[in-house]
Amino acid sequence: MEVAAASAKPILRVAAVCGSLRKASFNRGLLRAGTSSTSLSALRFTSSLTMCKPAAADVCEDSIPGLRVDHLDISDLPLLNTDLETDGGKGFPSAVEAFRGKVRQADCVLFAAPEYNYSIASPLKNALDWASRGKNCWADKPAAIVSAGGGFGGGRSQYHLRQVGVFLDLHFINKPELFVQAFQPPPKFDSDGNLIDAEIRERLMQVLLSLQAFTLRLQKKE
Amino acid sequence: MEVAAASAKPILRVAAVCGSLRKASFNRGLLRAGTSSTSLSALRFTSSLTMCKPAAADVCEDSIPGLRVDHLDISDLPLLNTDLETDGGKGFPSAVEAFRGKVRQADCVLFAAPEYNYSIASPLKNALDWASRGKNCWADKPAAIVSAGGGFGGGRSQYHLRQVGVFLDLHFINKPELFVQAFQPPPKFDSDGNLIDAEIRERLMQVLLSLQAFTLRLQKKE
Amino acid sequence: MEVAAASAKPILRVAAVCGSLRKASFNRGLLRAGTSSTSLSALRFTSSLTMCKPAAADVCEDSIPGLRVDHLDISDLPLLNTDLETDGGKGFPSAVEAFRGKVRQADCVLFAAPEYNYSIASPLKNALDWASRGKNCWADKPAAIVSAGGGFGGGRSQYHLRQVGVFLDLHFINKPELFVQAFQPPPKFDSDGNLIDAEIRERLMQVLLSLQAFTLRLQKKE
Amino acid sequence: MEVAAASAKPILRVAAVCGSLRKASFNRGLLRAGTSSTSLSALRFTSSLTMCKPAAADVCEDSIPGLRVDHLDISDLPLLNTDLETDGGKGFPSAVEAFRGKVRQADCVLFAAPEYNYSIASPLKNALDWASRGKNCWADKPAAIVSAGGGFGGGRSQYHLRQVGVFLDLHFINKPELFVQAFQPPPKFDSDGNLIDAEIRERLMQVLLSLQAFTLRLQKKE
Repeated sequence: MEVAAASAKPILRVAAVCGSLRKASFNRGLLRAGTSSTSLSALRFTSSLTMCKPAAADVCEDSIPGLRVDHLDISDLPLLNTDLETDGGKGFPSAVEAFRGKVRQADCVLFAAPEYNYSIASPLKNALDWASRGKNCWADKPAAIVSAGGGFGGGRSQYHLRQVGVFLDLHFINKPELFVQAFQPPPKFDSDGNLIDAEIRERLMQVLLSLQAFTLRLQKKE
Repeated sequence: MEVAAASAKPILRVAAVCGSLRKASFNRGLLRAGTSSTSLSALRFTSSLTMCKPAAADVCEDSIPGLRVDHLDISDLPLLNTDLETDGGKGFPSAVEAFRGKVRQADCVLFAAPEYNYSIASPLKNALDWASRGKNCWADKPAAIVSAGGGFGGGRSQYHLRQVGVFLDLHFINKPELFVQAFQPPPKFDSDGNLIDAEIRERLMQVLLSLQAFTLRLQKKE
Repeated sequence: MEVAAASAKPILRVAAVCGSLRKASFNRGLLRAGTSSTSLSALRFTSSLTMCKPAAADVCEDSIPGLRVDHLDISDLPLLNTDLETDGGKGFPSAVEAFRGKVRQADCVLFAAPEYNYSIASPLKNALDWASRGKNCWADKPAAIVSAGGGFGGGRSQYHLRQVGVFLDLHFINKPELFVQAFQPPPKFDSDGNLIDAEIRERLMQVLLSLQAFTLRLQKKE
Repeated sequence: MEVAAASAKPILRVAAVCGSLRKASFNRGLLRAGTSSTSLSALRFTSSLTMCKPAAADVCEDSIPGLRVDHLDISDLPLLNTDLETDGGKGFPSAVEAFRGKVRQADCVLFAAPEYNYSIASPLKNALDWASRGKNCWADKPAAIVSAGGGFGGGRSQYHLRQVGVFLDLHFINKPELFVQAFQPPPKFDSDGNLIDAEIRERLMQVLLSLQAFTLRLQKKE
């Protein structure tokens, strides 16, 4: 946990994980919009940014003072197979090691959790599983979930993810919840997956503020 | 649906899908034991059989008259990414096409569903998701679940899988349920993942008989 | 199972159970609208009918040929306490006995399942529990769920109820699902809880037709 | 929140709620054993204590320094019916008012949550629902769950209760979880529902210590 020079306000590192791998994912669009300081009108990312891998630092700009967001890439993780582990379960494929390291560094986690077939998207479950192996990297971290989709806007996925969090020892905020019904008019996203709805962006900010407050509350250890 | 010559009893094809990829998986051991006519004492498979890929036909022998079991391999499916689809969502990577074809051919499905982090194992969710894309391959098929693990013996995974089945339009049998508490004495599996417990094998048979009966009941269309 | 004289088409008895006890419940309104042959314009029930207890027979008219619906009253069941059972668990308070008898007589079940605090409404859970005691009255019955409410329109309740159904051995239809978002414009119900939305009534009919088809499919025993 | 004189250590008030109404409930036995300073050999309560309603104060002695436990009686709550509310939803039947008052006074909550038909016991759901009406009495309270039963020892109930907690804004501890498989040898409870297993009592203490620590952690507000 760093401290910002002027205000002595701690800077919290947020690991942002999107469960969908497709380039124009609405759920990744939610993460971008929720974690960028740019205004909505400037949110039309270039193709490389769409993948949310800024060359320098895997870090997007801050949308909330005191939060620094890392967008974690989960697309190159192999499908979970514990036979790939080495060193008695302490060694992992390199992409897994890199992902685990970034999870460990985070003060809290923001999931964009699309609903696939009424449960967690397989790429997200895969990432959750890899970082839980051996020494669980998620332990004791505050977390929040947002999702976009049809029907309940990803709702069924969020409750399965909350159950996963019991074992992973994640502390999810209860409120506000955010379920974006992506296909109800007016359009919420453009064809690149960029959020174009100001009210939803405001609700995203409320999720992040709640995550920030809960993280600070839990960090006040003796 | 084929018909056995002598008895005119239909032969039901069961797609058996194991959610774990590791070679010595207890859950795959359950599928083998539940779907082989060999006795327990002969169940010590060779290494190649451990992968449940008999050279000839990907088909193990029948343990229940009237059931023919295909063990479907899910280890070579890519991590789900709809950007990999072609032809407007009708074309899939070749491993996915092959898997989808086998699901379609089945009369019913038997899942071995290990519990990873209180939910469905990522490799199984990945397979479920791929075969649901475009024209859903699981639709209207009867299904059953077995699992082995610590704690509830995989129970939490089974209930998440049942919720997935609502959207996939799978018809799960209600009873019997089978949760194998794999780490309670006496040993249930050997180090290769072979089931060595006669009572559990008998309960597996009851699951398969129930699946068979429910499949026949649902197939009696006008 | 009775048979209608002219057509030899079997008459299926549907037990309709509403989880809310309040008089103007939207969920009870769903049951009324889904199970009455009267047109929407005639659906403004009188006060006594609002309670769905027609003096004669506890039976409303049929909305679907081949279905006869009993509205089961659960308001006078005591709070579940197994100390109230007599005769070694075979005897029950009289209101419980009456309710159990009606469940047993039904060929299938239609639940109106409001969501209270992200799960099943307590009065409905109470009714489910009482009829499960001793010899389970729900066993092997096909069933469907409808709900009305804010947010997901009762969705979270429906999935918990489906899990309950695994133990009770209910066979839920998978599709269509019906979640009525009761507070989104235009108004769906009047102040007495009567459904006033024609499109939702049509979707209710589809639920009942699916329940009817699934019940007939499962009844074709040898 | 009171403060103990000598140590200036705050005394946390725990609301203990048992979901089963039967006198010899194992789940109520868990609450008694977990919240009494008496040794196991002295835990054979008299009949009146079995109902956990000590005449003086509805308060059992402390088993953990710094925790004071109120056993809340839910047996006389009416079945939830919002038509019983008065004063525009601000007035409740007297038993409900009394229960709500005790929930509000608590710093945290301990649930004994038996599993009825794979979900929350109806009496417990009823109590949860009543105290959520109008101004939610559960809001922002830390909580823990214990359960006893067959199968998973009440496990399925606990996960449904956790989902309820999202809406009620309860903050459940993640670990340790306690599921008592009540019917596995050796006996865990006597015929009055008193816990007679020392190892389970020790695990109960760990649950309470974790609840205490989490409550103190969350109370450190600025």
